[in-house]
Amino acid sequence: MSVREFGERPLIQRIRRSIGRRSSRVSVGIGDDAAVLTTSPGQCLLATTDLLIEEVHFRRRSASPYEIGWKAMAVNLSDIAAMGGVPRYALIALALPPELSVEEVDDLYRGMTALAARHDVELVGGDTCTSPHGLVLSLTLLGEASAPVLRSGARPGDLLAVTGSLGLSAAGLALLETSPRELLPDDRELALAAHRRPTPRTREGQWLQGRGVAHAMIDLSDGLATDAGHIATESGVSVTVRVDRLPISPAVRRIAEATGRDPVTLAVTGGEDYELLLTLAPDSSPELSRHFLNETGTPLTMIGEVTAGDPTVKFVDAHGQVVTFGEGFDHFSSSRSRSGLPTSYSGPRAPNPEPRSLS
Amino acid sequence: MSVREFGERPLIQRIRRSIGRRSSRVSVGIGDDAAVLTTSPGQCLLATTDLLIEEVHFRRRSASPYEIGWKAMAVNLSDIAAMGGVPRYALIALALPPELSVEEVDDLYRGMTALAARHDVELVGGDTCTSPHGLVLSLTLLGEASAPVLRSGARPGDLLAVTGSLGLSAAGLALLETSPRELLPDDRELALAAHRRPTPRTREGQWLQGRGVAHAMIDLSDGLATDAGHIATESGVSVTVRVDRLPISPAVRRIAEATGRDPVTLAVTGGEDYELLLTLAPDSSPELSRHFLNETGTPLTMIGEVTAGDPTVKFVDAHGQVVTFGEGFDHFSSSRSRSGLPTSYSGPRAPNPEPRSLS
Repeated sequence: MSVREFGERPLIQRIRRSIGRRSSRVSVGIGDDAAVLTTSPGQCLLATTDLLIEEVHFRRRSASPYEIGWKAMAVNLSDIAAMGGVPRYALIALALPPELSVEEVDDLYRGMTALAARHDVELVGGDTCTSPHGLVLSLTLLGEASAPVLRSGARPGDLLAVTGSLGLSAAGLALLETSPRELLPDDRELALAAHRRPTPRTREGQWLQGRGVAHAMIDLSDGLATDAGHIATESGVSVTVRVDRLPISPAVRRIAEATGRDPVTLAVTGGEDYELLLTLAPDSSPELSRHFLNETGTPLTMIGEVTAGDPTVKFVDAHGQVVTFGEGFDHFSSSRSRSGLPTSYSGPRAPNPEPRSLS
Repeated sequence: MSVREFGERPLIQRIRRSIGRRSSRVSVGIGDDAAVLTTSPGQCLLATTDLLIEEVHFRRRSASPYEIGWKAMAVNLSDIAAMGGVPRYALIALALPPELSVEEVDDLYRGMTALAARHDVELVGGDTCTSPHGLVLSLTLLGEASAPVLRSGARPGDLLAVTGSLGLSAAGLALLETSPRELLPDDRELALAAHRRPTPRTREGQWLQGRGVAHAMIDLSDGLATDAGHIATESGVSVTVRVDRLPISPAVRRIAEATGRDPVTLAVTGGEDYELLLTLAPDSSPELSRHFLNETGTPLTMIGEVTAGDPTVKFVDAHGQVVTFGEGFDHFSSSRSRSGLPTSYSGPRAPNPEPRSLS
């Protein structure tokens, strides 16, 4: 049954019922003018919001409603993770095309709530309305941290580190764009899952914040090149990345080969890995990565260093030679430069064959 | 210059600069992964979000960017006002059509920040992206209250009261739809201002909350009939409204006459007045309305009562005769029933001549 036939109030009731249990921290959830929430004394409140637009951030024909919901929640969780915060509350506003089925709306919420539940996040409010042109999701996430890790804390001499591995989401996107024949099914599944259902590094961010080892931190949404640039700009430092040290999985290398891409370019400019990029004091324990891996299950790789100088990001190879890549993603251009080639704006009604998110 | 030509990062920098001063309560505003905020001990955190879609909630040809920004902020402030809360922080996510000019984006922000500044609200975060189909605004507002007034607190015997006057916003919409020739310019200006730049009753809500006199409260966004229904449903009570007591201004009566509408229907089903509807203990001081008017400058009118019974809203005249009106607004139907006549869904690409908001 379509949203139009079902009606607004029955749909809101259905959503409200599907949210389920409410913790004692939530005095009032969905159903009043605003949510009424508790914060802990001595904690900072963190707040982040993201807007996801059909045909810009996702396509309904290449991502299921469940995946769209999951990813909308993941990108917000990743922002809280990048501060080392504990995510607490989500507000969800949806503009729904009237032809969307009620089952699809259910799936959208199931995707959001499945990931939210894993991170102990409660849905406490929102808004629904009709949309004349495609699905629109707006998520706001509130969290807490005693001492959040900012982008601006990097100091000359710091080590640059990254969690997990790079390029898998971009490899997933490359697969959607090219569909190569020769490929291991496992590689394909892994890359598509990374692209469609990314894992926000909430626990990893909290681990790093709790031990006070991270000077600056950001999540990799726009790509290593762009996001390292944010740390450089906000901290007023220069960042050097050793491309030979980037954690690139064999699956990314195989997919790059099969799709005619350069694996390092996927890792550097691909974006949407939702790993954490951080800087560490130079005297950090050499055991840090091992402890991190043991306790979170996620690798932590040293990939460069911070120096005094203009706020720039430099990529160098093992011999110290500078390597160049294309520019990062610009949200007002519906396509992005790949392999260093600049792309021109392709117009609001002719987006990429695959938009870069949620495809 | 268009948003497309200007580019994303220069635009974000421009917005960030235009936000201006930051209070000591904001540790980190725009520019990091999330805003870092302070809440006061012993206060509840309030959170509300609203999504505004072009051609559903507003039309760019009949509302200026300044007015669109103003109203987006107003509807959220009104939700915090309806709990008697103090609004604190706003997060703004925008999807911008690439052909929009940078000056129009400036005006949009000026509208939001002008109203935010009046209420001591700080813009602390947001998100911008491109939109292939029209402007999308998503606002999230955070506030505080020691003991928020809920929709669910009404008790049998309570008096029903409303702030300000009713129907002026709907009269403004009627003017946009019919453009009558015979009309006082002052009436026209007043009604259009009420429709385009509503005044959220923040101070009034805080006054009522602070004195502990309001048992239940809601803001009038969907119309008296619908919103009184929310109090009835959430509180499990019956609400009776005396239509002869509704505060309807002479301007509304004149505009109703000139546009062929019924002034009481405008007041009851018109919506978007953003007044506060509340219930008061039956032994409330007869001086309450006078004190309220003296201290806030806004009238408070007793318009009915709360009784035990099924959660329904009944409208009666001075003789106790039941009066009926059309149904309230359904956000999944792009038109609304006026004068009691049901309207059918007019399709996602053929909305009303004037959408009901921000027109």
